[in-house]
Amino acid sequence: MKPAPGFLRHITACNSFNGEGFMPFLIHSARVGWVRPAFAEALLRCSDRFTLEGGEDKESTHEALTPTPLPRGEGLFADAPATGERLHVDLGDLPFEARNQWLGEIQRSLLDQGVIDRLHGEQFPIYDAAGHGPLGLIDRAAAPWFGIRAFGQHLNGFVRDRDQIRMWIAQRAMGRVNFPGHLDNLAAGGLPYGISLHDNLLKECHEEASIPAEIARHARPVGAITYLAETARGCKPDTLYCYDLELPGDFTPRCNDDEVESFRLMPIEEVAELVESSDRFKLNCNLVIIDFLIRHGLIDPQHPEYTRLAEGLHRPLCE
Amino acid sequence: MKPAPGFLRHITACNSFNGEGFMPFLIHSARVGWVRPAFAEALLRCSDRFTLEGGEDKESTHEALTPTPLPRGEGLFADAPATGERLHVDLGDLPFEARNQWLGEIQRSLLDQGVIDRLHGEQFPIYDAAGHGPLGLIDRAAAPWFGIRAFGQHLNGFVRDRDQIRMWIAQRAMGRVNFPGHLDNLAAGGLPYGISLHDNLLKECHEEASIPAEIARHARPVGAITYLAETARGCKPDTLYCYDLELPGDFTPRCNDDEVESFRLMPIEEVAELVESSDRFKLNCNLVIIDFLIRHGLIDPQHPEYTRLAEGLHRPLCE
Repeated sequence: MKPAPGFLRHITACNSFNGEGFMPFLIHSARVGWVRPAFAEALLRCSDRFTLEGGEDKESTHEALTPTPLPRGEGLFADAPATGERLHVDLGDLPFEARNQWLGEIQRSLLDQGVIDRLHGEQFPIYDAAGHGPLGLIDRAAAPWFGIRAFGQHLNGFVRDRDQIRMWIAQRAMGRVNFPGHLDNLAAGGLPYGISLHDNLLKECHEEASIPAEIARHARPVGAITYLAETARGCKPDTLYCYDLELPGDFTPRCNDDEVESFRLMPIEEVAELVESSDRFKLNCNLVIIDFLIRHGLIDPQHPEYTRLAEGLHRPLCE
Repeated sequence: MKPAPGFLRHITACNSFNGEGFMPFLIHSARVGWVRPAFAEALLRCSDRFTLEGGEDKESTHEALTPTPLPRGEGLFADAPATGERLHVDLGDLPFEARNQWLGEIQRSLLDQGVIDRLHGEQFPIYDAAGHGPLGLIDRAAAPWFGIRAFGQHLNGFVRDRDQIRMWIAQRAMGRVNFPGHLDNLAAGGLPYGISLHDNLLKECHEEASIPAEIARHARPVGAITYLAETARGCKPDTLYCYDLELPGDFTPRCNDDEVESFRLMPIEEVAELVESSDRFKLNCNLVIIDFLIRHGLIDPQHPEYTRLAEGLHRPLCE
């Protein structure tokens, strides 16, 4: 069935998380994620470093959980922690390396037990809701089970010919785990621990589209998109750093791995039409393109949902 | 005293409203603003079209005020209406013109009584929190008393010389009511009812900086900034439509009214430094420039507050 057209539905789809059926996951009193009760129970069985705090039957801990006034912008789910339970993990005695080794063992144990379905291999840093960290490392595929924020980079690669903009669009290989065959930004990838934003972007540009470093280094950071999705695995809060790269007219992308099926240079109006009226793009790429369209004046303030789109691309981080 | 440097403090200053000491102001069950209790009482004395709903001593109306689950993003102050009072105005029998005439009489009466300090003359449209409207018109200077959202347009006028950007900065006349002598964007103004975004921008460009229409029409809409401030008059939720205009190197702005003292073409790094480490700019212009710096890669993801800045420029509309 053809979806009802509109840009906003993609933003709504990326922000499906509303806190219901989840409890906060804390490292040393700082919230780093959200977990489902069943997953929390699996963790509690794994190690006594995990403890449950709060809840109706634990009067003794209730005092410490009395909600204190939250700074502005941190209130959206402020009532959830006060009335429900929180999963806490105590890593206080472990230095950073030992902490990550222990977290790795927990994740492998969860995989062995069939609680989680896979591990990716790439390690993501864990930050708390206020942006402090890294407090530890988590496997990229395990992060949504813990509801831990993931960071990525997305590149808008385009060619300008006077006032006409054409955008390079990738089609993902059919063999990929997520969104096989869907359309994608020219280059995009997660930001693992231990590599700089600059180096990771150059690496993704090289691997995914054979963009040489002397061109890729002109990519301009243009902002960050944040959203908060609920998925089958759990809660997925993402931060996407976005980049614009104006490419020479004679450049043609070529994939250096088997992640991309093909590339196509499309008039930006055609790209906008696909985003607005189809689900051809990988879900979060729609948001990256909507942001591009707003910044380049191709969605303008006459659009009835203009401020809602501009606001919707930036889900508050602190909730 | 020199302020502690930082970009984020300007965003925090523009978002000083937290709902405390205010009650929702509704037209036909839709929230359009926020009012202080003392101002609500002045309105209740003006006309019996205004009524107070809810509150602890009004059991009979309590049933209707039981909070229903709010759509995502509308929860920040969800508890305020449930426990406190709401000011409601009934305009159901009045067509649009008569409604505005009545609203005008109320505002003049408030001015005569010394409840509000002035009227501006420009009429702003009233929209509800979901963006529906206009439900009526309100004087620009009266809007903050009612906590009604105001809309404006701000233009970043700049000159590009290879990779170097210089920005045209205005200094406001010393005789202005608000922020006399402060620095300002090249052109900016409120968006009154009855003029299009396009025409109003061209008008502001002409009046404030003598930018001819054939240049001004190249101004590119690049997004919208939203914030929610508490001021001496009341609550000030603003939406600023932002525009970038690359100007020819030989263009020099000139003021057509007495609002601007002088103009200066400044290297963008110097503008960024002024925003970061001083309070020289009119408060909300700082946000417009921070947005420009992010979109042009001059504040980049290495900045420790990058996502907080990107998010902070877009305060959710629905609260």
